Amino acid sequence: MYFHALIPFKPVNPKTRLSCILNQEEREAFARAMLEDVIAAVQKSGCSATLLCTHSFKHENALVAVRTEPLNDAINWALGQFHCPALIIMGDIPLVTAGDIQRLIRTEKDMSIVPGRGGGTNIIFLKKPRCFRADYYGASFLDHMRIAEECGFSVEVIDSFRMSTDIDEKEDLVEILIHGKGRRSREYLENSGFSIALDEKGRVGVQRDPHEEAL
Amino acid sequence: MYFHALIPFKPVNPKTRLSCILNQEEREAFARAMLEDVIAAVQKSGCSATLLCTHSFKHENALVAVRTEPLNDAINWALGQFHCPALIIMGDIPLVTAGDIQRLIRTEKDMSIVPGRGGGTNIIFLKKPRCFRADYYGASFLDHMRIAEECGFSVEVIDSFRMSTDIDEKEDLVEILIHGKGRRSREYLENSGFSIALDEKGRVGVQRDPHEEAL
Repeated sequence: MYFHALIPFKPVNPKTRLSCILNQEEREAFARAMLEDVIAAVQKSGCSATLLCTHSFKHENALVAVRTEPLNDAINWALGQFHCPALIIMGDIPLVTAGDIQRLIRTEKDMSIVPGRGGGTNIIFLKKPRCFRADYYGASFLDHMRIAEECGFSVEVIDSFRMSTDIDEKEDLVEILIHGKGRRSREYLENSGFSIALDEKGRVGVQRDPHEEAL
Repeated sequence: MYFHALIPFKPVNPKTRLSCILNQEEREAFARAMLEDVIAAVQKSGCSATLLCTHSFKHENALVAVRTEPLNDAINWALGQFHCPALIIMGDIPLVTAGDIQRLIRTEKDMSIVPGRGGGTNIIFLKKPRCFRADYYGASFLDHMRIAEECGFSVEVIDSFRMSTDIDEKEDLVEILIHGKGRRSREYLENSGFSIALDEKGRVGVQRDPHEEAL
C-alpha cells in the first residue's frame, strides 16, 4: 500500500517551552534532530514524507510544502490533495519506530489514532483522508474521535508509550535520554551536555554541563 | 500458568502530590478507586492479587500483607516467598486492562517490563522472581534493566501508553478523564466534580466544580 506521511514542522523558533534550557539556535537544531528521527522511522516503514513547513526549508529525503496558514488549515489543505491513504505524524515524537508506524498502517479499521499525553493527538492514519478534517489544539484526541464518528469511520486507538511521548517541556527530555538509544535527538542532547539527574526527592530530571551551554 | 500479582498500596495519606486538589480523605478514596481498577484488570487476566500494604487494610478479593519496611525491602521480602512467576504492578495505573497484562505474561523472555513516565517502572513480570531484586525510586527503569542483566535474564520492554501512565500529579487526572471510560477512578473524579478544562493557551487541564469540594 502506497501512502504519504504528512509531518508539520516549524523550522524557525520552535519548541519555545524549552527556552529555559535551549536558546533559539539550539531549539532549531534540536527540533531538526527530532524530525530526522521521525523521518527515518517513516521512511523505514515504507512511506514517503511530506513536510508542511511554516517557513522555507530544505530536506534531502522529503518533499516540502511551505504553508503560512494555521496548522489545521494547512493539514486540511494537504488532506484534500491526497488520493491515497495518509498518515499525519507530529515531528516531535522521536521515540517512534518503523515497527510502531506499521502498527497504525496495518489497521483493519478506516482510521487508527495515537493519543498524545494531555489530551493531544500524535499520529492519525486515514484510509480516506479527503473525508476527514484535522482539529489540533486543545483536547484534540476527543475532537478527532468525534470527527471520525461524523465521517462514519471505524477507529482503532493504538496504545503506545513511544508514540504518545511528544517532547515539549524540559521534563520530557528525560524520556529521550532513557529510551532514545540510537536516536539523533539523543545524540544532540548528549553532545549538548545533557544528562539524567535526580533531585533531592529522588525524582528524575535532566541537568546540563555548564561547559556545553551556549546561552 | 498460575502466578501472583503483587500490588504495593498505601491506604493512609497516599498521593500527597494531589494535595492541592484533594484532601486526605479524598486522596484515600481516590487511591482505593485506582486500586480497584488495577485489581479488576489483574483478576480478569487470571492472576491472584496480593496487596503489600503500609497499614492495616482489608479487601474482599485480594490477600493483604502488612509490611512496614521501605517499599523495596517489602517487595524483595515478597519475591523471596514466591515459587511461581510474579507480576509487580503499581496501584496507580488505572488505565491498565486485562489484555495489557496478558501482553506481559505471554512474553517469551525471562522478564517483561513496562517503563513509567520520567524513568520509573510501572510493571515487572518475572518468571523466576526469587533471583530478582526490586530497586524502585529514581531512574528505576534503568536500574531494573541492569539488575535483569546481572541475573542473566532476557528482557522484553513493553510499549504501552495506558500502562506507562501513573497518576501522581493534578495534570495526570486528564488521562483518566479522557481515556478512563468505565474505570472506578474516573467515576470517582466525575462524582467529585472534576472535568476537562482548557487554559488560555489551549492546553488541557482539569477543573473542579466548587460545589463538589469538601476542602
